[in-house]
Amino acid sequence: MSAQSNEDSERLTQPLLRPATRNSTSQVAIVGSNVCPIESLDYEIIENDLFKQDWRSRGKVQIFQYIFMKWLLCFLIGLIVSGIGFCNNLAVENLAGVKFVVTSNMMLARRFGMAFLVFSVSNFVLTLVASVITTFIAPAAAGSGIPEIIGSISAVSSSLLIGKAGPMVHTGACVAALLGQGGSKKYGLTCRWLRFFKNDRDRRDLITCGSAAGIAAAFRAPVGGVLFSLEEMASWWRSALLWRTFFTTAIVAIVLRALIDVCLSGKCGLFGTGGLIMFDVTSANVTYHLVDVPPVLILGVIGGILGSIYNFLLERVLRIYNFIYEKGPAYKILLACTISISTSCLLFGLPWLASCRPCPTDATEACPTIGRSGNYKKFQCPPDQYNDLASLIFNTNDDAIRNLFSKNTDSEFQHSSILIFFFTCFFLSIFSYGIVAPAGLFVPVIVTGASYGRFVGMLIGRRSNLNHGLFAVLGAASLLGGSMRMTVSLCVIILELTNNLLLLPLIMLVLLISKTVADTFNGNIYDIIMKLKGLPYLEAHAEPFMRQLIVGDVVTGPLQLFHGIEKVGNIVHVLKTTRHHGFPVIDESPLSESSVLFGLILRSHLIALLKKKAFLSTPVPTGIEAFRQFSAGDFAKRGSGNGDKIEDIELTGEEMDMFLDLHHFTNTSPYTVVETMSLAKALLLFREVGLRHLLVIPKISNRSPVVGILTRHDFMPEHVLGLHPLLVRSKWKRVRFRFPRLIQIF
Amino acid sequence: MSAQSNEDSERLTQPLLRPATRNSTSQVAIVGSNVCPIESLDYEIIENDLFKQDWRSRGKVQIFQYIFMKWLLCFLIGLIVSGIGFCNNLAVENLAGVKFVVTSNMMLARRFGMAFLVFSVSNFVLTLVASVITTFIAPAAAGSGIPEIIGSISAVSSSLLIGKAGPMVHTGACVAALLGQGGSKKYGLTCRWLRFFKNDRDRRDLITCGSAAGIAAAFRAPVGGVLFSLEEMASWWRSALLWRTFFTTAIVAIVLRALIDVCLSGKCGLFGTGGLIMFDVTSANVTYHLVDVPPVLILGVIGGILGSIYNFLLERVLRIYNFIYEKGPAYKILLACTISISTSCLLFGLPWLASCRPCPTDATEACPTIGRSGNYKKFQCPPDQYNDLASLIFNTNDDAIRNLFSKNTDSEFQHSSILIFFFTCFFLSIFSYGIVAPAGLFVPVIVTGASYGRFVGMLIGRRSNLNHGLFAVLGAASLLGGSMRMTVSLCVIILELTNNLLLLPLIMLVLLISKTVADTFNGNIYDIIMKLKGLPYLEAHAEPFMRQLIVGDVVTGPLQLFHGIEKVGNIVHVLKTTRHHGFPVIDESPLSESSVLFGLILRSHLIALLKKKAFLSTPVPTGIEAFRQFSAGDFAKRGSGNGDKIEDIELTGEEMDMFLDLHHFTNTSPYTVVETMSLAKALLLFREVGLRHLLVIPKISNRSPVVGILTRHDFMPEHVLGLHPLLVRSKWKRVRFRFPRLIQIF
Repeated sequence: MSAQSNEDSERLTQPLLRPATRNSTSQVAIVGSNVCPIESLDYEIIENDLFKQDWRSRGKVQIFQYIFMKWLLCFLIGLIVSGIGFCNNLAVENLAGVKFVVTSNMMLARRFGMAFLVFSVSNFVLTLVASVITTFIAPAAAGSGIPEIIGSISAVSSSLLIGKAGPMVHTGACVAALLGQGGSKKYGLTCRWLRFFKNDRDRRDLITCGSAAGIAAAFRAPVGGVLFSLEEMASWWRSALLWRTFFTTAIVAIVLRALIDVCLSGKCGLFGTGGLIMFDVTSANVTYHLVDVPPVLILGVIGGILGSIYNFLLERVLRIYNFIYEKGPAYKILLACTISISTSCLLFGLPWLASCRPCPTDATEACPTIGRSGNYKKFQCPPDQYNDLASLIFNTNDDAIRNLFSKNTDSEFQHSSILIFFFTCFFLSIFSYGIVAPAGLFVPVIVTGASYGRFVGMLIGRRSNLNHGLFAVLGAASLLGGSMRMTVSLCVIILELTNNLLLLPLIMLVLLISKTVADTFNGNIYDIIMKLKGLPYLEAHAEPFMRQLIVGDVVTGPLQLFHGIEKVGNIVHVLKTTRHHGFPVIDESPLSESSVLFGLILRSHLIALLKKKAFLSTPVPTGIEAFRQFSAGDFAKRGSGNGDKIEDIELTGEEMDMFLDLHHFTNTSPYTVVETMSLAKALLLFREVGLRHLLVIPKISNRSPVVGILTRHDFMPEHVLGLHPLLVRSKWKRVRFRFPRLIQIF
Repeated sequence: MSAQSNEDSERLTQPLLRPATRNSTSQVAIVGSNVCPIESLDYEIIENDLFKQDWRSRGKVQIFQYIFMKWLLCFLIGLIVSGIGFCNNLAVENLAGVKFVVTSNMMLARRFGMAFLVFSVSNFVLTLVASVITTFIAPAAAGSGIPEIIGSISAVSSSLLIGKAGPMVHTGACVAALLGQGGSKKYGLTCRWLRFFKNDRDRRDLITCGSAAGIAAAFRAPVGGVLFSLEEMASWWRSALLWRTFFTTAIVAIVLRALIDVCLSGKCGLFGTGGLIMFDVTSANVTYHLVDVPPVLILGVIGGILGSIYNFLLERVLRIYNFIYEKGPAYKILLACTISISTSCLLFGLPWLASCRPCPTDATEACPTIGRSGNYKKFQCPPDQYNDLASLIFNTNDDAIRNLFSKNTDSEFQHSSILIFFFTCFFLSIFSYGIVAPAGLFVPVIVTGASYGRFVGMLIGRRSNLNHGLFAVLGAASLLGGSMRMTVSLCVIILELTNNLLLLPLIMLVLLISKTVADTFNGNIYDIIMKLKGLPYLEAHAEPFMRQLIVGDVVTGPLQLFHGIEKVGNIVHVLKTTRHHGFPVIDESPLSESSVLFGLILRSHLIALLKKKAFLSTPVPTGIEAFRQFSAGDFAKRGSGNGDKIEDIELTGEEMDMFLDLHHFTNTSPYTVVETMSLAKALLLFREVGLRHLLVIPKISNRSPVVGILTRHDFMPEHVLGLHPLLVRSKWKRVRFRFPRLIQIF
C-alpha cells in the first residue's frame, strides 16, 4: 500500500482542479521532491453514524440555510471575482498605459536614450515586485489570491509576454476556497451557516465555480468560463454544478457590464471605454465560400504543428528553469530580472529594424497615434509616418491583438514586421511563462497565433474573401487549439472575445484540425506542465494495457487494519508510523471465525477522536451516548494547512491502554471492488464517482475481508508500468506513446 | 428481482437519450402498458475471455480501422443530417410559402371564401398525410427517420403550431443508429469495418452525436447542439465524446454554410437567402443600464410562472390525448384533423378582429407585402394599409419570430393584436404537440415567449433603453427557461439564433430567474413527458431518503443463478421462464464448500451459445478450443428488434441433457456493491458508470456469493417508495415534492 501514503501535505486546495498548474507560483513546492505535496479531495460522502444522525436531524431551517448559503456563496464569488477582474484590467491598462505615454512623449522629443531608460527601468521594477511577491509572500498556490493579483498586475504591466487569465483563474479558485471556509478562522471571520460547507465535496464545487468566474472575468466570456471549467478543469461533474457555475458566471457578466457602464462615462483613465467584447471583429459582411476552405485547412495544419512545437519547447524551458530554481530564491529573482531586461531590449530595439511608412489616407484612426496606445505608433518616425512593428511590439498585448484582428487595415503591415513580431512572441512567451511571477498562457498564445494568422493572410492576399483581421482570428484559434487542445470551450471563448458568430464554422474547422494534428505529436500544455510539477492527475480514460491487468496485480505491501473496537496505543502507533489517509475497519463475524469488513475510517477522523479523548476502559461497544460529546463540526474539514497532526496529540500511558469504539465514526458504505476486477474498470469507477480510497475485497472469502486499498497513485500509468515492466514492450504501450490522445477512443 | 425482468422489448434504440421523448410518435407504444417496452443499453464493457482475446488480437490495422471508422461515421452523420435539415427547411418554406402566396392572391382579389377553402383544405391534407404516416408507417420511434422527416415537413407546412427541431433530433439519432449498424442487414448493406461498433457503448455514442447534429441542423446552432446533447440528453458523458460531438456539429455547420451559399444565388425558391443566423438581431447600439434590469427581472419571473403553467397544461392535455388514443388509430387521425381545422379557422378568422393600420412611411420593407411572406401582411385591408395580427398569425412560424424580434418596428403592433397572438400560440401549441405527427416544442415556445416579451416591451415603452425586438428575444428566453429548464445550452442556442453577444448578460439573467421560479412549481417538460410515456429515466442525483436505506432493503425476490458449467436444459428453462437480461455465474470454491462469484452472463450471449450448440457431453471445463467456433461477431449487438429469442431455438431432448461451459463467455469484472452499501451511493455508481446490472454481494460470506441484482427499476424513486411506504411520510419526501429540483443540491 505504498501509494496510500504519498498524500501527506495540505498545501494545495485544489489538486484535481487544473488552475493550480496555470500559474507558475507553485513550482517552488514541487521541484526536487518525489513526494507530491498534494492531498486528494474526495467527492465521496462519508456515511458514518454521525453523518446519518446529522443528516436526519437537519430540519427545514437547516436545509434552507444550506441552499441559501450555497447560492449566496456563488453570488459572492461572482461579485468579488468580477470586481477583482475589473480592477486588474483597469490597473494593467493604466500602469502600462502611463508607461507607454511617458515613453512616447520622450520619443517625440527624440530623447531615445531617456525613453529606453524609463521603459526598461519601469519594466524592471514591476517585474521585481512581481517576482519578490511570488517568491516570498505567496510561494505556493495556497494564498488568498491577493498577492497573486498584485503580482499579476505588475508582471503584465511590465510588458512581459504573459497572460492575465491564468492568475485570474487561480484568484477565483482562492476566493471560492476562502469564502467556503468562511474567511479565515485565524481572524475570527467564520460563520455558523457555513458549517455545512466544510467538506471536500462542497469545497470542490465552490472552487469549480470560482475558476469559471476567473475565466469569465478575465475574458468577459461567461459561457466560455462555464465550458472551460467543464472541459478542462473539473475532474468530476454533475448537472447541478453546471447550473451553479452558470449562475456564478452570469453574476460576473452582469457586474462587469455595470462596471463598464462607469467607464463609458470616461472615469477609467487610460482603460478607455472598453465594452463587454474585448476584440470586436463584428463586420456584417463576412462572406466566405468553398474557395476559402483550403487556406483555412492549411492554417489549421500549420497551427497544430506550431502548437505542438510550442508545447515541446515550453517543457524544455521549464525543465531548465526548475534546474536553476533549485539553487535558491535569489536565482529565481535574477532570472525574472534577466527576462525583463531582455524583453525591454527586444521591444525597444526591434522596431528600429522596421522602416517608417506613410500614414494611410483612409485610416479610421488618428495616424500616427501620439500620447496614447493606438493602432499607428509613431515611435522614431518623422511626422505623418508610422512604424508598423512598433504598433505591434511597443504596445500592450491587448492593443496588439486588437490591432492584428482589425479589419480595413490590410495594408498596414509589412511582411517582415509581422514575421519579426511572430518569432519574438513565440520565443519570448515561452521564456517568460516559467519565471516566478503569476503568468497565464492564453494571451501570449493568442498574440502569437494572431500574428501567424495575419502573416498567412498576407501571403494569400486577394485570393481569399477573408480580410487579414479574420485570418488573425483563425490563426489565434489554430495556435490555441494546437497548444491547449480544448474544443468547445475554446470555440465559445473565441466567439465571446470576437463577437462574430458568422465565423463559427471556420473556427470550428480550424480548431478541429489543429487539435488533431497536434495530438499526434504530444499532449496538451496543461498535462505537460502538470507532469512537470509532479501533480498526479488521473486521466478519465483507462490505458489499453489496463484491460490486461486485474486489481490484484497492483495491490502491494502490507495492509494496516483496525478493529471495530481498537486499542488507543495501536491507533497512535499506526498513525505515527504510516502516512495513510484511510484505514479499513474490520469486525469479528458473529457466525464464523473469519472477520467481516465494517467500513473505512479516515485519518483526520481518528485524530479528531484521539483529540477528544473519548476513550473506553474496556472493549465494550458504546451506544447512542457516544454522540453526545461530538458534533459534526468536530469532524469538519479544516482549512488548508490547518489540519491537526498526530504528533500534536499527547496521551498518557494509561490512556494508551484504553480503547476506542470506531463503529460510529466509520464510513459504512465505502466503494469496493473484487480483486479479480479488471484494472480499467476499477479506474472508471474511481474516476467517475470521484473517490479517494477504493477498497479491494477478496474473491474467495476465507481470507481477510479486505486485501488492499487503491488510491490515485495506484492507477497512474507510470506506477502500473513500473510494477509490470513487461507491459512496456506491449503494442498498447507503443500505440500510447505514438498517439497519446487518439487512444482515448478505446 | 422482479425489476430485473421488466426490460423485454427492443423497440427503442435510445432509451436514455431523451430525443425519444421529443416526438410524439412513440406514444402508441406506451399507452396502457405497464411493462415498459424499452431495453436499457449498457455502457459497461463486457470483459469476458472472448472479448479479451479479441482485444489482444487487434493489430494496428484493426485499431486504425476502428479510429478511422469512428470519425468517418461522425463525418457521415454530420453530412447526412445537415443535408436532411437543409432539405427539411427548404421544403417547409416552399410548401408553406406557396400556400400563403396562393391564399394571399385570392385575398387580394377579395375572394375570401375561396381563400379560406384553399388554406384550410391544404392544411387538412398536409396534416392528414403527417398523421397517416405517423400512425401506420412509423408508429414507434424506431424508424429510419425518413417517415418522420416527411411527416414533419407536412405537419409544419400545415400551419400547425409545432416545431421542427424535435423531429430533427430524432432523425439525427435514427441516422446515427442506422449508420452504426452499417445500414440494414436485411438489404445487405453491412460493412465488415463496422463490426467493432455493434455494442451498446459505441451505439450510444453515435446516437449522441446524431442528436447533437439534429439540433445543430435545425437551428444552425452547432455549439448549442453539442451543449444540448450534453446538458439534456446524454445520461453519461466522457471528454472524448465531447470532442466527437463537436466534430459532428462542425461538419453540420460547414455543410450548411456551403448549402446556404447555393441559396444566395437565388436557387432556393421561396426559402430566400436565409443565412447561417436564423433570427439576426445584430444591432451595434445595444445599450442598457441598471435601469433596464428591473423590467428584465419581471420578465423572468412571469416567464417562469408561464413556463410552469405551460408544462402543467401540456401534461393534462397529453393525458386526455392518451385516453383518446386508446380507442384506436382512427381516433388519432380524427384528432389530428380536428386540430388542423380548428387551427385553420383560428389563423384565418382571428385577423379579422384586428383593425387595419396605415403603412408606416419609414418602413424598411415593402408595405403591405403581397405575394410573399413578409412583415406587413395586407390580408383583408385596403391598399396602403396592413393587418398587424395577420402579420403574425397568418404567416410561417419562422417569419412570425423574425417579425417579433425585428427592431425599428416598435409601432408596428397594437396591444390587442399581440395579446390575441400570445393566447392563440399558448393554447394552440399545447393542443398541437400531442397529436400523432412528428412535433417539436422549441419553435412554439419561442413564438409564444417572443409575443409575451414583446407585449411586456410595449407596456414598458420608452421607459427602457431596449427596443421591443430585444424584449421579444428576452421573452422567448424566459419561456424557454421556464419550460425546458436548461441553462447553458439554451443560452448558447439563443445566442446562435440571434447573433448578439451583447445581450448575453441579460439572457443569462432571464434564464436563471425563469428556471428558478419555474422549478419551485414543477419539473421540466421533458421529465413530464417522459414520465407520461412510462420511460424509466433515472435521475443523476439520489433522493435524500435513499441515504436512509441500504442496498439490501430494495433487493427482492428469488435470484436465478447459473453454475460455471451448467446443464443446457436448466439454461433453456430459466431463459424461458424469466425475462431477466443478466444472470450471475457462480463456481465451487476450491478451498471451502461455499461457492464463489465468477461473473455475470447476458441473456443475449446465452442465446448465442445455445444457437451455436457448442455443448459438452460431460461437465468438464473446456480450454482454448472453445473459442475456435466463435468470433466476437456472434455476440455482437443486433440491430433494433432483430435479436434472437429463446423461443426460436429448437433443441432435442439429448441436447437438453448436455452441458455448456459458460466461463469464457462470462463477464468476469461485473461491478459489485456490498449489501450494506447505502442506496444513494449505489445509485451514484450505477449512474456514473452507466450500468445496466449491479451485483449485490453479501457482507458475511458464508451465504450465497451473490444476494441480488439491481437494475434501473430498483433505483426508481417510485419503486423504492413502494417497497418502503413509511418513507412516504418522511420530511424528505415532503421536501422533494415541494421543491422537486432544488433538492438536487444535496
